[in-house]
Amino acid sequence: MSPTPHIVIVGAGFGGLTLAKALRDDPVQVTLIDRHNFHTFQPLLYQVATAGLEAESIAHAVRGIFHGQLNIDVRLGTVVGVDLDGRLLHVADGRPIPYDHLVLAAGAVTASFGIPGVDEHGFGLKSLEDAITLRSHVLRQFELTDADPSLADAGSLNVVIVGGGSTGVELAGALAELFSRVLAKDHPHLDLSRARIVLVEAGDRLLPAFDARLGAHARRVLEARGVDVRTGLTVDRVTGTAVHLAGGEELATGTLVWAAGVRASPLGAVFGVDTDRAGRVIVGPDLRVPGRPEVWVIGDLAAVTGITKPLPQVAPVAIQQAHFIARQLRRVRDGRPGGVFRYRDKGSMATIGRDDAVAELPFGLRFTGRVGWVMWLGLHLIELVGFRNRASVLVDWAWNYVTWDRGARIIVTPPAHAAGPAPPA
Amino acid sequence: MSPTPHIVIVGAGFGGLTLAKALRDDPVQVTLIDRHNFHTFQPLLYQVATAGLEAESIAHAVRGIFHGQLNIDVRLGTVVGVDLDGRLLHVADGRPIPYDHLVLAAGAVTASFGIPGVDEHGFGLKSLEDAITLRSHVLRQFELTDADPSLADAGSLNVVIVGGGSTGVELAGALAELFSRVLAKDHPHLDLSRARIVLVEAGDRLLPAFDARLGAHARRVLEARGVDVRTGLTVDRVTGTAVHLAGGEELATGTLVWAAGVRASPLGAVFGVDTDRAGRVIVGPDLRVPGRPEVWVIGDLAAVTGITKPLPQVAPVAIQQAHFIARQLRRVRDGRPGGVFRYRDKGSMATIGRDDAVAELPFGLRFTGRVGWVMWLGLHLIELVGFRNRASVLVDWAWNYVTWDRGARIIVTPPAHAAGPAPPA
Repeated sequence: MSPTPHIVIVGAGFGGLTLAKALRDDPVQVTLIDRHNFHTFQPLLYQVATAGLEAESIAHAVRGIFHGQLNIDVRLGTVVGVDLDGRLLHVADGRPIPYDHLVLAAGAVTASFGIPGVDEHGFGLKSLEDAITLRSHVLRQFELTDADPSLADAGSLNVVIVGGGSTGVELAGALAELFSRVLAKDHPHLDLSRARIVLVEAGDRLLPAFDARLGAHARRVLEARGVDVRTGLTVDRVTGTAVHLAGGEELATGTLVWAAGVRASPLGAVFGVDTDRAGRVIVGPDLRVPGRPEVWVIGDLAAVTGITKPLPQVAPVAIQQAHFIARQLRRVRDGRPGGVFRYRDKGSMATIGRDDAVAELPFGLRFTGRVGWVMWLGLHLIELVGFRNRASVLVDWAWNYVTWDRGARIIVTPPAHAAGPAPPA
Repeated sequence: MSPTPHIVIVGAGFGGLTLAKALRDDPVQVTLIDRHNFHTFQPLLYQVATAGLEAESIAHAVRGIFHGQLNIDVRLGTVVGVDLDGRLLHVADGRPIPYDHLVLAAGAVTASFGIPGVDEHGFGLKSLEDAITLRSHVLRQFELTDADPSLADAGSLNVVIVGGGSTGVELAGALAELFSRVLAKDHPHLDLSRARIVLVEAGDRLLPAFDARLGAHARRVLEARGVDVRTGLTVDRVTGTAVHLAGGEELATGTLVWAAGVRASPLGAVFGVDTDRAGRVIVGPDLRVPGRPEVWVIGDLAAVTGITKPLPQVAPVAIQQAHFIARQLRRVRDGRPGGVFRYRDKGSMATIGRDDAVAELPFGLRFTGRVGWVMWLGLHLIELVGFRNRASVLVDWAWNYVTWDRGARIIVTPPAHAAGPAPPA
C-alpha cells in the first residue's frame, strides 16, 4: 500500500457521502465518483413528483458538500469497468484511476422483473430525472384532457401505482392531495372524479416492512382520501393505455408508476464479481468482496452474507455501513483485526399525506396520525441539515400547508440543445 | 360579435398575463394559450443560468395565477396558423379556436442575424430551458477540465458573451461571482485565472439604452471584477471552440453566450401578416393589424408604426400595452372611439452583481452602486409578488448573499424517457 492510501468511492448517495465525510481527518486520499454532480435526497423524490417541492431543493452539488475538506477529489464520471488485479478503476472519457481501497456505493435502480411493458410504459421514482419526468407526464395528461375531455373515458387522468411499500404509499397520498386540492382548481372544467388513483400491492397488506397495524392505518387513511387500494393482486403486463392484472382485470390508465421493486445498479455485472439475483454484489459480513479484501460494497448494492436476517434497502443501512467501513479502514491501517457489520434498526417512517404518517420505532413504539406526521417532518428537516436548501424547503412546505398550493407544477420540456457545443479537445 | 365576446390571447409572458388579469371583471370570455404551462420571469433568467436561483423559483404555473377567475380558459398548446377571415385560430393537436378578438403576445426569441455558427454553438438566454442548458454546460466544462486540466489550454473554461446590453452585463457580473467565489472553491485544483469572461459589444459602450455615465460605471465595475470588456467589436463567425471577431482576432472559448439580439416569435410569419425585418408584426398606433381591427399585437412581437420613437423591447412596454388593450376593448364594446397607445417610460435598471447596479429613472435621476442594487432588489421582489415563489427566492438570495454559495449548481441531464407513455387516444 502506498504511503497515503487512496480510497476510491463510487456513488454519492447516502452511503458514499457519509463515508467520504467520515474520512475527513484520516491520513488518506479520497476520490468520490458519481454520474451526477449532485446528491439526490431520495426520501423526498415523491414530493418533487407531486409538485410539492422544487426539484433543485432536494439536490445538492457534491462539491459544495466538501468545501474545506482537503483530502478529497470529486469526479463527475461513469464507471465502465475495473482491473481488480491491477487495482485500476476505468471511467468513461478519462484515465484509469488507481486505488488502494475501492468502495462501491452505487445504489439501486427500478426493476420491472421482466413484466412486459413496464420498462416501456412505466415511470420509476429512483432519481431526480424520474421525479421530474413523472410530474411533467401527469400534468400533461391533465392538460391534454382539459383540451379534449373525451380522453378521460380512456382513463387518461388515472394513475396506477404498483407497489404498496413506503414509496407507493407516500406517492399515493401526495397525489391524492395534488388532485383534490390543486388540480381540481387548475382545471375547473374537468370532472376530477374521473381521476382515479389506484394503489396495487401483491401482498395482502400495505407497508409490509411495518407492523400490520400501521399498514392497516395507512390503508384507512388513503381510502378516506379517495385512493383505491387493491391488495393481493399482481401485474401481468402493461400497455400504453392500461395495466393488465393477473386474473384478467384491466385498469385503464394514462400513467403507471412502478414502485414494486428495485435491483442493484448494474455495477456488479460490470465488475464481473459474484452477484445475487437482484444484481447485488455478494460480500461477507465485513462488507468485503470474498478474495478481494480491498473492495468493499455498501448500501443497496451489497448482498451481505453470513448474517441472520437480510438487511432492508434503506438509507440508514448505507449510512451505518459507511461509518463501519471508516472504522475498518483505520483498523487495517493500524494492523488491528477487522470486525463484522451489525445493523442497528432505529425505526422507519412513511408519510401518508398532509397531517398523517406512520412511525415504527424500537421497543415497540408506534405512532400514527398527526403525531407521526410531525415526527416525520422534524426528522426530514434535521436530515436536510447540511443542505443549503433546508430553508427553502421549509418555506415551500409551510406555504403548501397553509395554502394547499403546489407552485412547482411546471412541465419541463427537455432542452432542445442540451448537448451544446462540443468541449474543446 | 357574439353576445359574450371571446378574447383569445397567445402567449403567457408579461403582456398576455397582464391582459388576461385585467379582463377579470369584464363581460368577456378569455382563452390564454401558451406553449408552456408556466410563465417565466425573464428578468431573472441570468440568475438561474449562474445557479443563483433555482429554475422553478422563476417559473409559475399559469393556471395557478387564475384560480378563482371565472371568465378564463387556460390552454397548453402551440399555435400553427390562423384563418383571419373566418376568425379561427389553429393549434397543434386540437380543434380550431374561434375568436372575436385575437391578441398576439408571443414575445421574442434569440436572433443570430445569420452569423455563421451562432445557432449551432451559441447559447441564448430567453427561456427557462436556455438558462438550465447554459448552467449545465458551464458546470460541465469545469467538470471536464477538472478531470483533464489540459483542456483549459484550449479555452474550455472561458465564457464569451456577445452583446453588452442588460442581459450581457447582468450575466457577466453574475458569472464573475460564480467563478471567483463558488467554482474556485468547488475546484481547488483548477487555476481559475484560466477562466476568462469576455464581454463583446459591437457599439462603443455598454448598456446603450442607458445614460453613457451608467454604461461607463458598469464597465468599471465589471473590469474590477475580472471581466474582459471589449467594445467596438463584431463577430464574424463561431465554431465549437472559438469566436472569430471581425478583424481576425480569435477568442478560444468553451462557451459562447449570444445576448446580442432578438427577433420576434415566428408567429407573424405563420399568420401571413406584414412584418418588419425582425419578424415583428406591423401594427398601427392603436396596436391593431391594419385592416384587421380584431387582431391586436403587443410586446416584443409588435412593430408599432405611426409613433415618433421606436419602443424598447422590455417588459414594461408589454404590460402597459396590455392595460391599453383592456381599455380599448371596453371602448369597442361601448361603441366609443378608440385611442392611441402611449408608452410611459418609468426607467430601467440592470444589476452588475452583488452590491452594484445601475438605475435610470425619469427626471434624470440616476443611481449606481449599492443604492442602485438595493432598489433593483426591492423592485424585483415586488414584481415577484403574485408568485408563490417570492419567499423561496428571498431565502435563496439571502443565503447567497451571506455565504456566497450557489446551491442550485446542478447539471441536469435531459430525462431519458421524457416522452413517457403515449396518452390514451
